[in-house]
Amino acid sequence: MKSFNETIRETIRERNSQLCVGLDYYSEKVPIHIREGHDPIFMFNKAIIDATSDLVCAYKPNLAFYEAFGSEGWDALERTVQYIPENILKIGDAKRGDIGSTAAQYARSLFRMGFNAVTVSPYLGMDSITPFIKDSSRGAFVLCLTSNSGSRDFQYLEINGIPLHLHIAGKVNAWNTNDNCGLVVGATHPDEFGAIRQAAPDLPILIPGIGAQGGDLKSAVRMGSDDRGSMAVINSSRGILYASSGPDFQEAARMEAQNLRDRINAISERTTIK
Amino acid sequence: MKSFNETIRETIRERNSQLCVGLDYYSEKVPIHIREGHDPIFMFNKAIIDATSDLVCAYKPNLAFYEAFGSEGWDALERTVQYIPENILKIGDAKRGDIGSTAAQYARSLFRMGFNAVTVSPYLGMDSITPFIKDSSRGAFVLCLTSNSGSRDFQYLEINGIPLHLHIAGKVNAWNTNDNCGLVVGATHPDEFGAIRQAAPDLPILIPGIGAQGGDLKSAVRMGSDDRGSMAVINSSRGILYASSGPDFQEAARMEAQNLRDRINAISERTTIK
Repeated sequence: MKSFNETIRETIRERNSQLCVGLDYYSEKVPIHIREGHDPIFMFNKAIIDATSDLVCAYKPNLAFYEAFGSEGWDALERTVQYIPENILKIGDAKRGDIGSTAAQYARSLFRMGFNAVTVSPYLGMDSITPFIKDSSRGAFVLCLTSNSGSRDFQYLEINGIPLHLHIAGKVNAWNTNDNCGLVVGATHPDEFGAIRQAAPDLPILIPGIGAQGGDLKSAVRMGSDDRGSMAVINSSRGILYASSGPDFQEAARMEAQNLRDRINAISERTTIK
Repeated sequence: MKSFNETIRETIRERNSQLCVGLDYYSEKVPIHIREGHDPIFMFNKAIIDATSDLVCAYKPNLAFYEAFGSEGWDALERTVQYIPENILKIGDAKRGDIGSTAAQYARSLFRMGFNAVTVSPYLGMDSITPFIKDSSRGAFVLCLTSNSGSRDFQYLEINGIPLHLHIAGKVNAWNTNDNCGLVVGATHPDEFGAIRQAAPDLPILIPGIGAQGGDLKSAVRMGSDDRGSMAVINSSRGILYASSGPDFQEAARMEAQNLRDRINAISERTTIK
């Protein structure tokens, strides 16, 4: 059985893409003929997947946008995950973090739903993460340095001169004995990328925060895609999903995805040659 | 409109109870006639609520145990929250923590479901918590020092001699301008209670970790119930819910709840007199 991190490396290589599309369903941005039609959440996701699946290595639904619709949203999420083609990674952006016995419940339900990996919060420590990384074929991306302004509140606090997020990066690196841990680092912090890569040289890094949040694509890709086979998975959500809210939304999403995938690959190649 | 923290104080006073029952549905521990009957999750919760509602100030479902059953579990959770009598607090133990725009989605759905308050994770900082405390009648309990063993991994890291959890307690205290912030502190850390109370003198504290997790009830109650009207909400889940797995489970749950409520009140009274 391949480890999750080996699966990421293979998927990126075979699909020639580091692009992850975040499936965040904002009702008010969805084209009106979908929003007011039958089964809108699933139908929108299906349309986006149909339009972009050959361009991506992963899809990443954020669970908040499905919970917002109660049991109906949850049901649409389950069908969305089932619908994503087999050889594309399915990352559940859940940011879960609870005590061991409860974390085990979260892990069971998210993996049973078909996710290959889940985002998790580090604050509760190792026993809150263990249930997600027990099975080496599934993985966990641990929040390290997030893309939002609140990342300044606690993530930069210094412990003996080392900021908390680097401390966490080092710990997660040590926990990676099953080759299935990764980090989440927002593209809005390009100056920190180098030190994080040093603390966790081999971990895949899931990078949100480009596009709508204004993060730096070039640094994000360079940090990830080095000669040692380390990998970055670059996420874009709103920039692709809502490129158009008209009847041409599928073409617009595809064009944005292709454009971004190509820009990432161009930066990657330059980095590798250099 | 009363602030959430004022509502806690009133509820505890009027109901003469600081006891919160955690509604964590472990299928394998539920009496067989419920587990194999119609609508088991809701029917079990209903039976527990019917047996204990006059003894508690709050119920606290942990969302992990409902997500574990997909859309069906989510539906049972919604009906459970609706079923809890009006004058009892409904705390959603969700430990959510995401960037501002996404946190707003979580807040909207959890509050719409009928929760008065939600547990949230501090790691993403202020903008991840703001959506939960914008409306002063609803509240957020921020994870400070958790009851699990993994709390040792990051929560004790020292920043200029101050452990991270105390740093967070102070920040949350400063964010409490709407009188609707609280903290979560595990009963398994009795030696830390004093310093946390000093950093956040007026915040309500939700205290899990007694019972199955072996925390110290006396310290937990004493930290919470001081002369200034500060409050602790003491949670027990498995110890009450699964006091018996036989047909007498309601009586057994009631007896455990009554016993714990009375012990808490006895400690409280001694503290107040002293």
